[in-house]
Formats: sequence, structure tokens, C-alpha cells
Amino acid sequence: MQLGIIGLGRMGGNIARRLMLDGHTTVVFDRNVAFVENLVQEGATGVADLPALVAGLDKPRAVWVMLPAGAPTEDTINALSALLEPGDVIIDGGNTYYKDDIRRAQALSEKGLSYMDVGTSGGVWGLERGYCMMIGGDAEVVTRLDPLFASLAPGMGDIPRTRDRKSDDDRAERGYIHAGPAGSGHFVKMIHNGIEYGMMQAFAEGFDILKTKSSESLPPEQRFDLNLADIAEVWRRGSVVSSWLLDLTADALASDPKLDGFSGEVADSGEGRWTIEAAIEQAVPVPVLSSSLFARFRSRQQSTYGDKMLSAMRFGFGGHVETPKK
Amino acid sequence: MQLGIIGLGRMGGNIARRLMLDGHTTVVFDRNVAFVENLVQEGATGVADLPALVAGLDKPRAVWVMLPAGAPTEDTINALSALLEPGDVIIDGGNTYYKDDIRRAQALSEKGLSYMDVGTSGGVWGLERGYCMMIGGDAEVVTRLDPLFASLAPGMGDIPRTRDRKSDDDRAERGYIHAGPAGSGHFVKMIHNGIEYGMMQAFAEGFDILKTKSSESLPPEQRFDLNLADIAEVWRRGSVVSSWLLDLTADALASDPKLDGFSGEVADSGEGRWTIEAAIEQAVPVPVLSSSLFARFRSRQQSTYGDKMLSAMRFGFGGHVETPKK
Amino acid sequence: MQLGIIGLGRMGGNIARRLMLDGHTTVVFDRNVAFVENLVQEGATGVADLPALVAGLDKPRAVWVMLPAGAPTEDTINALSALLEPGDVIIDGGNTYYKDDIRRAQALSEKGLSYMDVGTSGGVWGLERGYCMMIGGDAEVVTRLDPLFASLAPGMGDIPRTRDRKSDDDRAERGYIHAGPAGSGHFVKMIHNGIEYGMMQAFAEGFDILKTKSSESLPPEQRFDLNLADIAEVWRRGSVVSSWLLDLTADALASDPKLDGFSGEVADSGEGRWTIEAAIEQAVPVPVLSSSLFARFRSRQQSTYGDKMLSAMRFGFGGHVETPKK
Amino acid sequence: MQLGIIGLGRMGGNIARRLMLDGHTTVVFDRNVAFVENLVQEGATGVADLPALVAGLDKPRAVWVMLPAGAPTEDTINALSALLEPGDVIIDGGNTYYKDDIRRAQALSEKGLSYMDVGTSGGVWGLERGYCMMIGGDAEVVTRLDPLFASLAPGMGDIPRTRDRKSDDDRAERGYIHAGPAGSGHFVKMIHNGIEYGMMQAFAEGFDILKTKSSESLPPEQRFDLNLADIAEVWRRGSVVSSWLLDLTADALASDPKLDGFSGEVADSGEGRWTIEAAIEQAVPVPVLSSSLFARFRSRQQSTYGDKMLSAMRFGFGGHVETPKK
Repeated sequence: MQLGIIGLGRMGGNIARRLMLDGHTTVVFDRNVAFVENLVQEGATGVADLPALVAGLDKPRAVWVMLPAGAPTEDTINALSALLEPGDVIIDGGNTYYKDDIRRAQALSEKGLSYMDVGTSGGVWGLERGYCMMIGGDAEVVTRLDPLFASLAPGMGDIPRTRDRKSDDDRAERGYIHAGPAGSGHFVKMIHNGIEYGMMQAFAEGFDILKTKSSESLPPEQRFDLNLADIAEVWRRGSVVSSWLLDLTADALASDPKLDGFSGEVADSGEGRWTIEAAIEQAVPVPVLSSSLFARFRSRQQSTYGDKMLSAMRFGFGGHVETPKK
Repeated sequence: MQLGIIGLGRMGGNIARRLMLDGHTTVVFDRNVAFVENLVQEGATGVADLPALVAGLDKPRAVWVMLPAGAPTEDTINALSALLEPGDVIIDGGNTYYKDDIRRAQALSEKGLSYMDVGTSGGVWGLERGYCMMIGGDAEVVTRLDPLFASLAPGMGDIPRTRDRKSDDDRAERGYIHAGPAGSGHFVKMIHNGIEYGMMQAFAEGFDILKTKSSESLPPEQRFDLNLADIAEVWRRGSVVSSWLLDLTADALASDPKLDGFSGEVADSGEGRWTIEAAIEQAVPVPVLSSSLFARFRSRQQSTYGDKMLSAMRFGFGGHVETPKK
Repeated sequence: MQLGIIGLGRMGGNIARRLMLDGHTTVVFDRNVAFVENLVQEGATGVADLPALVAGLDKPRAVWVMLPAGAPTEDTINALSALLEPGDVIIDGGNTYYKDDIRRAQALSEKGLSYMDVGTSGGVWGLERGYCMMIGGDAEVVTRLDPLFASLAPGMGDIPRTRDRKSDDDRAERGYIHAGPAGSGHFVKMIHNGIEYGMMQAFAEGFDILKTKSSESLPPEQRFDLNLADIAEVWRRGSVVSSWLLDLTADALASDPKLDGFSGEVADSGEGRWTIEAAIEQAVPVPVLSSSLFARFRSRQQSTYGDKMLSAMRFGFGGHVETPKK
Repeated sequence: MQLGIIGLGRMGGNIARRLMLDGHTTVVFDRNVAFVENLVQEGATGVADLPALVAGLDKPRAVWVMLPAGAPTEDTINALSALLEPGDVIIDGGNTYYKDDIRRAQALSEKGLSYMDVGTSGGVWGLERGYCMMIGGDAEVVTRLDPLFASLAPGMGDIPRTRDRKSDDDRAERGYIHAGPAGSGHFVKMIHNGIEYGMMQAFAEGFDILKTKSSESLPPEQRFDLNLADIAEVWRRGSVVSSWLLDLTADALASDPKLDGFSGEVADSGEGRWTIEAAIEQAVPVPVLSSSLFARFRSRQQSTYGDKMLSAMRFGFGGHVETPKK
């Protein structure tokens, strides 16, 4: 099958590669000419702009946009929508806010264009492991493009089947689902990332306690000298917390057990924030997901105005002095 | 009435003063001779050691220990218990863990000594405002020493009476209560401090949002240039959050609206921690009280091992790079 | 001075009353005719619809809209804007989302109309205590209407002045501020309510521990039989947590110490939710304010799907059985 | 090798089985005679009391105690310590508090007995998957009993090796570690369980949002009709949250997508609580681990006193009425 791909960064480039490895053809574009040239050498058809991309695709066309959420994606989809023809489909594989998907699908449908949002998990490992995809959009278009999704997805691999599972639809077992109408793909992916934040923070807090238990600030009789790399490793087999995130943690600790290679300042992205907003809209209590987000906010500050205010109050009622850092 | 007082720091010294201002006599001791001499000039009887303190008191003796919780208090009470006689009473006015009170009261009762734990709120303002006291111990001893408590307490002042309150016991309205047996005074004070942490953190977070809304990192059209000192001031009158902590906040902001005089590193004391432990023992969910404690823990660290682990995982699955701070 | 008031419920009616008590005149409207008639008997001019209200006001007109946020307020302001003339001012005294204020002020200014958002705290006590007001809008209009705000505000009362406060503007001390441009009044009020949630939850958690400590499910030797009404009362004088919310708590506990009159299902309103959204937009960690909101969400559910999922996992890995409630 | 086992419940029985399957011999005891008889039929030597168990073991003896933490374990170890001889070793495979281990190891060493604490993860799956073990105690005894641990552990299985791992000790890769001195095994297991709580709650909150998004209480245009079983299934392949807990979740949802088989009341055990206490002792902020514990506390209550107090305050300042549930 044929797919146009716009945006050949870490994700988009490997999506093109994984498709070509499975016999599909791709027409690719990126503002960075070097990215295009690399893929051309691997068999893709490279183009220099959006009109060329549209001209290079067979009808009905399918174009996968793999760009940062927000203006880059929005502007590209707007430009595309002026070039495409009824029956064509635009796929947003990025991390767009699901309400933007709903709005866009509506606007594009008025022009006869289809819109799909594909929440895509897999990161730098996707080329090798495959991409877990959560798809929103019209069922018939999802079906039409099924060969692409089937190739991109991880497949069943050697992961055991779920014991009690009974379903006529085996796509979930092969690593992709049609979640529902436009927006639902990114919605499910958003929640996936929210959960990811929570799981990561659970590990971070647990290992922080383990690390501190080895600290020389504790009296010797309360101290254990724990080997964190070994602990991560042993939990990979037979424990309840075994998970891919633990595998990655074990790998990081194996080469840098003190994690000195990292600053401790942790970025967050839209999905973590939107997850909390969705929870609030639906009145769902999410203390773990929100705490995980707030830990990242806090990690990027040396001190907060709020903390200074605590000191100011303590000084006010108790004469406690917590003076400025030198 | 007469009271022996051991420990003449910020709290103990003013307790002696407030008692003397109301006509009581005090016999005072502190390892710091200057503290003793100051109080002697204000009318107290100063002594040089514990035996002299015990010798200087009429039977049945009452000795108020106002020292840091833990070893200083424990050692002093042990020493006192060897000097005192049946019928005497030891009062711990510090911030002792309530389970230590229960243990001590038991041990001292075997020697015929009474033990009282008096959770004492008021800080540096107690001399002027009076001390709010939560008392644990035997009712008859609490009654015997009532004149002391009545003098130390704030009294009704000009704070309006609670509309529907009906009680034969007006001590609560005058600022002190007999909470129950030994330990209960410090237990109630401990919870008071736990609540205090939560209220402080609520203000800290709210003002942090207000402060950040004025931040130049926001685009101008989303920014308000808010006067935080005025906001604290206006809330003091007629708003739902009016409180003594807000009064102190307004005072701090009036002289230092950016709170540059504070480091942002905030200490915590035993009561905040024990409150969480009590909640866990009793299976009470306390997300606000625990979050308030954790914010203080976090305030004292530049970065955490846990945060570095988040970055390590993000690098592992997404190739995201968060490098060491220079 | 003269004010038109639309919406004569708990808040709007008493705003009219407090103004009239201070010599102002009011022209009032409510869909509920009885509310209008009541105020007419107290001296107001009652009208039957918006055109009559506009016709009854001297130019430049000032109309205070005191309706539920959302459609009722929006629709009324839209209708008013078609009736008013350049130079007139619309005041939204409700709990509107501040971004809606910014949008509205923009739209109305194109018609020559002024818009003010007045965050109004005081609840059912406002008539007696006065209203704490946080005002957003153009400075000149705020100044023009100052006599109204001065009358509605609590005034300095017998609340002591803040020691170090130096300001040429004494409005904050009298209970109202001009916070900044349109939207800033409701923004500050929103944060006020966020803080309010946090303070309330701090008390709720603390008293929950106290309550549970008296529980018969604890072994007798770990149990205290605490008098919660006395504890709330004693903290009102001299303690660090003294506050208006504590006064209200003491009042509630005085008449119903077990709080059997309440269901335990707690509503939340827009401001608590928007506070979290503002914090997330500005990357401010707000664990206490969010936990307070989530506690309310949780209070309204018997059980959650998430909790059932925990049981399902526990059954899966450990064979633990947590069966349906009968 | 030979092992005495006391306690033949879900864990102890399968530990005996897994050892015998690998050629070891066991001498087994349980107060429930049926449990003993079952294992005798599978090849174990059954005994009727502790003296018989001790008599039936070759010196130096090794006895694995697999009983509920607290009194059952404590009493059994006390009884054993009176029967065993210098050089013998007692293994506590349960979920004992690590400070109790430290105390016990000290007391037993004075009698010439060795003590090991083995945190054992694996639940009902251990017989098949093997047990992940975290061992505290003296190195020489851990080495002496290595054949037992090697048989109980999962082994490397088909889980890929950690890329950068370099270690002379391959025990972690085979599923067990010698964490350090007595107490360290249960300490590491305790933190494992703390992390487990956090991960579980992350999934629970995420799926709660997904579930609620399908709710009929949302307006239709904001609603998605999501298939939660499919979502859990798809995340098992290629996503960042893939984990054993997700496998169990997928299994539960496959047979009961509404989870109607569960009450929503979730138990918690000692490790989750002790994890928070350890964090507090070490001043480590753990908002996610504590929130996870509190969610379980909350799940077991219909309504809380704290929530009623919120309603009482809301009534106090705003006249809001939240009446008792019928």
C-alpha cells in the first residue's frame, strides 16, 4: 500500500522505514532535506513540498502527519486540506489534543476529506518493536488502511494471549485498535501517557526511598547499603512490578547506578496535563496522576514562592528563621 | 500559685512572664544562666540546678518542663522523677510524641508522681495573646493547677461566642481544655499542627499561582500584574479564608512582597510526621496533610534521585535528553 | 448612588439591601416576582423586565448581574448589551470563568460598554459582615463606582491593621481591591476559593483523625474519647489555626457533634476546578488544592471503577477476594 | 537439599511443591492437618508439631516460616528458637516489618541461631513462574542455602538480559538477591509492594477516566463508547505501560469488563503503610505511594466524617445544603 508521510523525525522516519520493510511504498517530506534524502536512499520517494507530495500519491490519498502537536500540525493540515480532494484521508499520528481532533474532523468532513487520529506509542523502539496504535476515525477508512496499521503494529509476538479473551476482532492482540470516532484515538493515547506518568513516579518514589536508605545521613544502624541495579534486575523476574519501564530502569541503573548523567529536571508534555483536565471535566479523582505531573513541575524549580511563604508564616508565628540560600 | 519551670527559651521564658504578670510565683531553671538572670530581674526565683529547683518548691510541687522533645525532655523528666515526691506533678509543655506521654505517665504513676502533657500553641505571640492549651492527664491534677492554666490561656477576649454552644465547662471558651488522659493533650496538639501544615500549604499554593500569573514567562495577554500584598490584605476582611495565618501572610507581604528574605527551604517537625502516622494507624485518608509534609521535604532538596530516574526512563523509551545541571 | 441589579437570590438580594441601608438606590429585577416584591417593600424600585430596568436607570448606567455562572449570566449580558448605551457599565458579580470575562470585556468595549468582574466573597453573611470584593476592569470605572463598593465592603471594622503595611490605597484595608484589567477580579476570587477548598480539607482531615481516635474499632488502650466541639472551640483562641472556617466548624459541632445532619456528599463548583487548570497552565504544583477537589469528587461516589480494578488485580496476582457489596 | 516448612497456605504449600519438583526434600507442618496430608501425598514428610519438625531435620537445620506477619510468625519463631541448636537457621518468608527482623536477628544470634528474612513475591503464580526473592541475612548462610533459592527463583527464563548489565553475581538475573543484613530483604520487598500500590493506582485512575468517558452522564457529543478490554489488550504490545499488572488487568476485563464481580472495597496490608513510614523517616516525598494507600482507605468507607465537615462548613458560610443520604 502507499502512504504519504510528512515529518521524518524520530517517529516519522521510522514509521516510513517499518512500512517499507513490510513492502509498502512511501512518499515522504520534511523541511529538513537531509531527512528526506536518508529515506530516499532507503527506498522512499522524496518530495520537496506539499503540492509535490499530493501530486505523488494515488487516489484516494492517505497522508500521515507526524509533527509536534499545536501549530506545526495545525498549519500543515490546513495547507493539506486545500490541496487534497474528496475521499482523501489525513492521519494525525502526533500527540494532538483530542478536542482539536473532533473540531478538525468536523471541518474536514465538510470538504469531503476524512480525518484519523492515531495515538502512537513506541518511541525510539518502534522500528524494532512495532508501534502500539490507538485509532480514532470512521470505521470504513480504518478498514481501508488496515494493511498499513497491521505492518506498523507489533503483532502478537511472543507475548502470551490473554486467557479469558474472546473477541472476533484480533487487532488489539496484534497491537492496534479502532477506539471510536475522531478524537478517541488521541484520547486513549492521552490516558496511556497519564498512566505512564503515574507508573514512572511510583518507581521513582520507591527507588528514592531505597537510595536514601543507603544514605550516610542516616545513623549506621538504620542504614542498608543497597545495590539498586541488582534490585531493579531481580524485580524483572517473577515480581508483581515487572514491566517495560522496569526493564528500562534496570538498563539505566546497570550503566549509571547513581544516575549522575541526569539533571533531575523533568519535562512534561501535553498529554499529562490534558489527562488531569479530562479527569476534572468528568469528576474523576486522580491523585496519583496529578501528583506525578506536579512532581515534574516541581523538579524544574530551585525553590518556589509558595515554599518561601511557608517560611514567612513560620517566622511570623514562631520566630523560626529560614534565611536565603547563599 | 507557684510553678517550677525548666527551659526558659522562646516559650518557657514567656510562660514564666505571663504567669508572673497575673500574680503567680515561679522558680526557674535553664542551663543558660543569662536566661535565668533575666527572669530573676522580672521577679522569678532563679535556681542553679534541678535539686535546687525541687528544694525551692512547696509541696505538692508542680514542675513545667519546656524543652525540645526527645532526649532533652526525656533526660530531664528522668532526673526530676528521682528528686520529686509522691503527689508532685511533672508537666511536659513541649511537643512530645503522645505515645511517649502514655509510657511516661505509666512509669511515673508507679512512683506516685503525676504527669501532664500540655500541647501549647501560641509561639512568640503567647506572652501577648495567651497560650492555647490542650491538656492530657488526671482530672484532679488538671483542676488543682487550674489557676495556672487560666492565667496562661488567652481568655475569651473579644472573640465572639459560638452561637449554638452549650456547655457547663467554659474552659474551651477561655482557651484551654482537658482533652483526656495522659497523651491526649499532645495528640490534639499534634493534629492541630497537622492542620496548620495543610492550611499553610493551601495559602502557599494559592499565592504561588497568583505570583506566577504575573510572571514574564507567560505571554502578555495571559498575564495579570497582581499586587499580592493587597490581595492578602483584602481577604482579611469578609472573605472565607480570613485567618490568623492570613494575617501573618499579609504582614510578611507588606514588608517583603517578593519574599526574597526567605530561602524556600522549609523545616518540618515531629508533629507533622506523627499526624500522618496516626492517620495511617487509623486508616484515615489524609492527602492534604501528607502533601503538605512532602512539600517541605521536597523544598530542602535541589533535585531528587527519583526525578533523575524519571529522566533516565524518558531517555530509555523516547530518547529524551535531560542532561546534568552545569 | 444608583445601581441596577439583576438576580435577587441569596447574594443579589442582600447586595441590594446593604446598598439601600447605606443610602443608595436600586432598580431590581428577577424572574421570580416574589423576590422583586420583597425588595420593593424594602425600598427598591422593582421592574418586570430588562428593558424596564435599563429605562429606569440614569446614564451612565451601572447594572450588576448576580446570576449563576454560565448560560444565565451569558444570556443576560448579551441581552443587556443590546439595550445599553455607550458609557454604561455591566458588572458581573457571579463566579464567571476569568477567560470568559476577558472575552466579554473585549466584545462589549467594541460597543462602547464597560465591563467589570467582581469576585464577591461573603455568602449568606455578607449583609451583616459586608462583602470582600476583588474587582477587574478599567480603573476609571472602578473609581466612578467607588461609593457602591465602599458601601458593600466590610470596612476596617475591628480587625487590627497589618503592622508593616504602607500603601496610599486603603481600599484593601476596607475590604475591596481593584485587582487589574477585566478577568483579574474573578481570577483572584477563583484562587481564593481554591485556597478555601484546601483549608477546609485540612480541617476535615484533622478532625477525621480526631474522630477516628475515639472509635470503638481501636483497642481501648489506643483510644481517646475526644470532645470535638471543645477542641474546635479551644483552637479559636490563641492557636495557629484560628480562622473564620474554624468558627463555622465550632458552630456546627456545638449543635451536631457527630454531624449526622450531613450526607457526606460534597458539591464542588467551577472555581475549584479552574484553579487546578490555571495551576497546570502555569506549571505550578498544587497537590493540596487538587487533593481537596478530588476528595469532593470521591465523596459523591459509593465506589469507583478504579477501586474495583484494584481488587481485580489483587485477585489476579494474589487470589485475594473482595466480593461485591450485598 | 532439605528444608523444614511451617505454614502450608497459598504460599508455603507451593514453595514446598516447587522445591520437591526440583529434587529437594521437605519436612512440613501446618495446624491444618489436611494441608499437611496433601503435601505428604506429593512426597513431603509431614509432622504433627514443631518438636517433630526439628527432630526430623538434619543439622544444621533450615526452617522456613511462611505465616502471616505479626503474632503467628513471632510466636512460631519464639517456639522454634527454644528447640533449635546453634548453627541452625530460621527463615521468615512472610511480610514481616523489617525492624522486627533486625530485632529478631539480634536476639537469635545470641543463641547461636541464624535468621534470614526473605521477601517473596509471586503470589498464586509462584509455583509456575517461580518466586522473586529479596534476602536479608549473613552472606555465608545465604550461600549455604543457595540451592534452595536457585530452585525457588524463576530463573532467567525467556526474559531478555539487561543490555548494559555487568556483574559477577548472576543471582539477580535468575530472580533472587542477597540484599544485605537481616531486615534488608523485607525492606526491599516492602518498597516493592509500595511501588506495586502506585502502579496499580495509576492503572485504576486511568481506566476510571476511560470508563467515565463512556458514561451516559456526559452529553453525547463529549462521550466515547470505549472498549476497555480492547484498550488493556492493545497496550500489552508495544506500549510504554506494558507490564504484568496490565496483563492481569486485561485478563480481568476480558471476562468481566464492568468489573461487577468486585465490591470496590480494597484491602491494604502492612507493607503499603510501612513504606510511607519509611519515607517519612527518611524525609522522602512520596505523594504517589501515599495517595495509593489513601485511595484504599477511602474505598472502604461509605462516607467520612471529614466529608460531612466540609458540608457543615459550606452550610455555615454559604447556606449550601447537603442533607443525609436516605
